[in-house]
Amino acid sequence: MARVANRWWGVAERGSAGRLEAFSDGVFAIAITLLILEVRVDQAPEESLAAALHHALPEIGAFAASFLQIGIMWANHHALFRLIDRVDQLLLLLNLLLLGCVSFLPLPTRLVSEHTSGVDARTAALLYGGTLTACAVGFNLVWHRAVRANLLVEGVQPAFIRDVNVRYLLGLVAYAGATLIAFASPVATVLLTVALALVFLLGPSPRSGLVRGEDH
Amino acid sequence: MARVANRWWGVAERGSAGRLEAFSDGVFAIAITLLILEVRVDQAPEESLAAALHHALPEIGAFAASFLQIGIMWANHHALFRLIDRVDQLLLLLNLLLLGCVSFLPLPTRLVSEHTSGVDARTAALLYGGTLTACAVGFNLVWHRAVRANLLVEGVQPAFIRDVNVRYLLGLVAYAGATLIAFASPVATVLLTVALALVFLLGPSPRSGLVRGEDH
Amino acid sequence: MARVANRWWGVAERGSAGRLEAFSDGVFAIAITLLILEVRVDQAPEESLAAALHHALPEIGAFAASFLQIGIMWANHHALFRLIDRVDQLLLLLNLLLLGCVSFLPLPTRLVSEHTSGVDARTAALLYGGTLTACAVGFNLVWHRAVRANLLVEGVQPAFIRDVNVRYLLGLVAYAGATLIAFASPVATVLLTVALALVFLLGPSPRSGLVRGEDH
Amino acid sequence: MARVANRWWGVAERGSAGRLEAFSDGVFAIAITLLILEVRVDQAPEESLAAALHHALPEIGAFAASFLQIGIMWANHHALFRLIDRVDQLLLLLNLLLLGCVSFLPLPTRLVSEHTSGVDARTAALLYGGTLTACAVGFNLVWHRAVRANLLVEGVQPAFIRDVNVRYLLGLVAYAGATLIAFASPVATVLLTVALALVFLLGPSPRSGLVRGEDH
Repeated sequence: MARVANRWWGVAERGSAGRLEAFSDGVFAIAITLLILEVRVDQAPEESLAAALHHALPEIGAFAASFLQIGIMWANHHALFRLIDRVDQLLLLLNLLLLGCVSFLPLPTRLVSEHTSGVDARTAALLYGGTLTACAVGFNLVWHRAVRANLLVEGVQPAFIRDVNVRYLLGLVAYAGATLIAFASPVATVLLTVALALVFLLGPSPRSGLVRGEDH
Repeated sequence: MARVANRWWGVAERGSAGRLEAFSDGVFAIAITLLILEVRVDQAPEESLAAALHHALPEIGAFAASFLQIGIMWANHHALFRLIDRVDQLLLLLNLLLLGCVSFLPLPTRLVSEHTSGVDARTAALLYGGTLTACAVGFNLVWHRAVRANLLVEGVQPAFIRDVNVRYLLGLVAYAGATLIAFASPVATVLLTVALALVFLLGPSPRSGLVRGEDH
Repeated sequence: MARVANRWWGVAERGSAGRLEAFSDGVFAIAITLLILEVRVDQAPEESLAAALHHALPEIGAFAASFLQIGIMWANHHALFRLIDRVDQLLLLLNLLLLGCVSFLPLPTRLVSEHTSGVDARTAALLYGGTLTACAVGFNLVWHRAVRANLLVEGVQPAFIRDVNVRYLLGLVAYAGATLIAFASPVATVLLTVALALVFLLGPSPRSGLVRGEDH
Repeated sequence: MARVANRWWGVAERGSAGRLEAFSDGVFAIAITLLILEVRVDQAPEESLAAALHHALPEIGAFAASFLQIGIMWANHHALFRLIDRVDQLLLLLNLLLLGCVSFLPLPTRLVSEHTSGVDARTAALLYGGTLTACAVGFNLVWHRAVRANLLVEGVQPAFIRDVNVRYLLGLVAYAGATLIAFASPVATVLLTVALALVFLLGPSPRSGLVRGEDH
């Protein structure tokens, strides 16, 4: 059935991943730019704008944190799709799940900025970290489907695949851990996820060569 | 006149469908990402954020349902335009009608999440299902115009065209049916449309070969 | 100076219009999709959703009208840029002016839907028609700059250029006329602009051949 | 480590800047189109729409000013990336910083339009000018990283690089100066930044040739 189905969707054709990546790029670009719509500077009567801006610092900080997350997730999505040559319907669905988590992020972003103390701060941080953890799950699912269904570009080394497996699993565990830390300190969850994104971008990458002969 | 008109629009030229598809991709990506703006978590005084999130579950569920619908409609639009080589002015207009229905979807999505019981729930579900049915009408119109005006890529088999005719007609009837079920149960309309989208994505495709020699 | 300046902007290079067109496509796609955010269904206490939707019909109609306008302006912008090979800084600025008018349209769209009678309806219709007239001015300015600064693709016939001159001037006059009719009937302005867009899309095009030998 | 890291991100590969530029284009296009959502025409009871529009002129002016800023920054970003062939992780991060400042602009735009007199007008103008100055810092950082890490296209002349250094430094100083003028006159800050953008677009460019032999 899969082969027949692909006649309609054309998804298993060589190069079919390009269109999905372009669509995903659009969703990332829009989600990252919509974040600012959630930042509201509410000025109480008699309050100066400077004071209102000072009160809005948590919202601006949350904007910056989520901007960084989505930006680095975009770069990561792009790195992942460098390895994927074609898609099938299930990968398409899993990628939609991932994009859904990304475009959901503006909501918990607003909640963590509105609730900075008490039990509500913890709830908000759990939702925020949970959304990022769901994104990490999405990345793992897309990657494993691509490996399982043999959708990668040609010549990717098994050692490289194992390195990416580890990298993605570590990412998932780290985000889940940062989420659980909300029970101790909600603000630590947000700061940790920022640190994780930066480590992910600037830190080391898979040690194996992508293709044969690149090893060291 | 048609030929002269095409001198301006350039629409009947080979490959002219590519630009229209890119524009449509943009509209799909934006519509799918705007959905989250409609999800509001309103916290009553004295209410915990956890309770407010619990009350917001219908909104979050409606977000997820519409996200899936637009995502799968995007994939379907892309599959359709694989078959279309060039556009004319009428197809351009019909495609605009389809995009208008897609970008209208955030409104009924909010309404179904706000009205979960009583006669208003039925009204909202009718509008929600009706919008998706209008999308299905749009897909049928674009497809039939492309066939009628001979705008397909070369070599598409008549049997494949008949299979797509049936596929699109069945889709239209199924969405219309799911809409009418709102008179019995509004929530069933939403659940059925989700199921239809998943069946459409993961289920069987046209049985005939796209081009000669692919038949089995 | 112009030649030196172009070293930085690279705008006079062959094919430089492609990037500007892609950016413009993005603005059109976003502006058309944002329109739905302006449609609000406000339900009075005790009022049924069906009645509220009935009251919202002017907003939905204005949404549809502006959706059509922006969609057809996109197609027209694309047809125009088929003729333009490269841009210079002034054309870039004039195109920004045009895009600014397009992305301003959601505001008068909301106003015409909120004010359906009295002197405010006239004000709203004047702003709505005026914005579309400003778009027509923008199209004229971009076109004339491209002709004047010799930025067209090679081989465009003088007769074709004259035909486009007339076409764009007629469009400007027609939109300005439709705007002034608001003094007699505000709703006529909106209906006339819809009719104009449809005539523009489906009606005749320049009669001369685009390139030599195409004449009839 | 850098080389190994690049295996994952693929950022140091020839032509890798293209994808980042496309993503950035998306963010610019969305940020420029979202500006209109901040323009609200609030009509007091008994007030005519014409009077309300008159009161909204500062908002519409701020919309136009920021539209111009983002449009010209887009053109400038495009001119800059004509010189950049590939990216590394740090450049990716610096470009995100720049995009973050661009997409932050709708917030100070609304604030300058809402606060037109008194000390709050000064605060708003400082934030508005400060955001644009931060954009100028972002452009400088991206440019210097590209030069330092040897990411430019081949054959760019040292004299051209020095000219761009000066150009970007002057831009930064000019925006910072326009910001400080808010202490004397907030509205002057907005007008000066508009003038700066126009001078930047229409004024002279680097005097040296981009590549050898282009000098005069």
